[in-house]
Amino acid sequence: MFHIEREIAEQPEIINNLLEREAETAQRIATAIRQFNPAYMYIAARGTSDNAARYAQYLFGIHARMPVALATPSVHTLYQTSPDLSRGLVVGISQSGKSEDVCKVIEDARQQGALTVSITNDPSSPLAQAAEFHLNLLTGKEISVAATKTYTAQLTAIALLMTTLVDRPELKSELANLPGYVRETLTRSEPIASWAQRYRYMERFVTIGRGYNYCTAFEISLKIKELCYIVGEGYSEADFRHGPFALIDPGFPVIVVAPTGLTQPILTDFLTKLAERKAEALVISNDDDILKYARKPMPLPHAVPEWLSPITAVVPGQIFAMHLALEKGHEVDQPRGLNKVTVTR
Amino acid sequence: MFHIEREIAEQPEIINNLLEREAETAQRIATAIRQFNPAYMYIAARGTSDNAARYAQYLFGIHARMPVALATPSVHTLYQTSPDLSRGLVVGISQSGKSEDVCKVIEDARQQGALTVSITNDPSSPLAQAAEFHLNLLTGKEISVAATKTYTAQLTAIALLMTTLVDRPELKSELANLPGYVRETLTRSEPIASWAQRYRYMERFVTIGRGYNYCTAFEISLKIKELCYIVGEGYSEADFRHGPFALIDPGFPVIVVAPTGLTQPILTDFLTKLAERKAEALVISNDDDILKYARKPMPLPHAVPEWLSPITAVVPGQIFAMHLALEKGHEVDQPRGLNKVTVTR
Repeated sequence: MFHIEREIAEQPEIINNLLEREAETAQRIATAIRQFNPAYMYIAARGTSDNAARYAQYLFGIHARMPVALATPSVHTLYQTSPDLSRGLVVGISQSGKSEDVCKVIEDARQQGALTVSITNDPSSPLAQAAEFHLNLLTGKEISVAATKTYTAQLTAIALLMTTLVDRPELKSELANLPGYVRETLTRSEPIASWAQRYRYMERFVTIGRGYNYCTAFEISLKIKELCYIVGEGYSEADFRHGPFALIDPGFPVIVVAPTGLTQPILTDFLTKLAERKAEALVISNDDDILKYARKPMPLPHAVPEWLSPITAVVPGQIFAMHLALEKGHEVDQPRGLNKVTVTR
Repeated sequence: MFHIEREIAEQPEIINNLLEREAETAQRIATAIRQFNPAYMYIAARGTSDNAARYAQYLFGIHARMPVALATPSVHTLYQTSPDLSRGLVVGISQSGKSEDVCKVIEDARQQGALTVSITNDPSSPLAQAAEFHLNLLTGKEISVAATKTYTAQLTAIALLMTTLVDRPELKSELANLPGYVRETLTRSEPIASWAQRYRYMERFVTIGRGYNYCTAFEISLKIKELCYIVGEGYSEADFRHGPFALIDPGFPVIVVAPTGLTQPILTDFLTKLAERKAEALVISNDDDILKYARKPMPLPHAVPEWLSPITAVVPGQIFAMHLALEKGHEVDQPRGLNKVTVTR
């Protein structure tokens, strides 16, 4: 068994563990946020963690009514200055907690009197030490270089913090079902192993999401690029429709993340347009009618609510990327050109 | 002559015109910003205009010390809610001023008491009407569907607003030289017409920038995709180095935006790594030593300062995208699948 395979399989248990063991910390952070009353949230992150930040943009924007900015760490490092962050809630997300530029953003923010929070997998890391508060991902060591379980744990930590902050019982009870949703997703993803070979010679692709699942489109695209060395790109359906849609010719592979919810009518319309162009649609959804648009369907649990769907919808993408890499004969645990800890100047 | 060719050539004159005729409006907006003292800037935009927003992130972050968030318009439209924007400076950027979702963000923000500014090419457009203040791009009608002169005008409007706000004489005098820099860039870009054919069968590519020119990498990538229907992606050098760098094999075409300034050492190191992999580097720079890394150099005026370089550096990219489309036999003024006015739900 490969490390990545095991780490993907561990996700339901890790999410369950995180929700139980970090509930109290989330409570303390939520109290601090209410007292501080930040004008906005500012999140520093790179790569996979930046996709977790994209989830936070929608989750906190919609439920906590908080404008969320993704930081530009180069402003702090290369240009050696900092925006005035004194009225912000400033969050650093990094699996290792060792990203120097993410750390620098948090240090600058804390010095200015911002409320600082870190989300990492290592409480002794520089990033965890730099922030006033720390949410611990508690995933155990992630050995495979491509991040899987730490990504879903980051999303879960963000969902936990949001539900604790807004304190709405129906969101809390939906969140409690998350480990079960992810478990069911793993079961429903088993057929991927048998059909991934169809894409052995795929040379290019795009992934499409909208709203909450903008992050999912980016993260699945990143996993495929990291593991399979294919050029592809994640898009919001809105941006893709105006311009890049011209790329689509018959057989062009498009992975569409289309769960039920408020984005559903738009994504259904998008799938109709893909069908007109005879594109090859791979569809991730919890709706059987939407899955009918797919050459290859990737089903999610029917009951998963839209706001939690990104934590399930990435899973078939992780599994597809892994199997495609295996079909191509690549090293899945140690892809070329990737290091586990990224140090950015 | 194609419309796009003429519109690219008009840029120096348009920039000059904008700097002169909108100086007073910029002054009024800067006064309002100082009075309002916003905690952050929140910019709504799509496509090319979103790349202009990326420029604002660095420009206002570094010089005006203002944290800048790129809006998620879907939160306002699909999810029918809005973050609390009452402490923000909220800016909508749209060439046509007709993007419904960008309009909705501005309407929500104004209703909440935010300070609102629109940047469009049409003062009678819904977006210009929705915001309290309007900066007029004054480019004249842009007939070609792919945006060129309206993009550099948007960047110029942002630079004008920033310099007026921070009121530093050395920045103002550098800005006054901008039309000349863009004129010289056009002259230095003439050789592109003769070598663009080399890339006639290019199937994939990436564009790389860092800091101020993050936007340039995105915008050049978008122009090539829109006009040439090739899969490619814009990246920050920092994000590309960790992961997608594995894509690079001998001959892989990489467009690197590497002007002099604080990003220079890092981008020089990146170009060395590309050379080791025997990638095909196309380099946009004002430094002759950096241009030596290029299979095809795209020179900028030597004197252009880093903060203004994005307004010059995109120009050879526009010209390359246009000539490549012509070599491929595509319609350059009316690419398939593109509409001039984008309406996003």
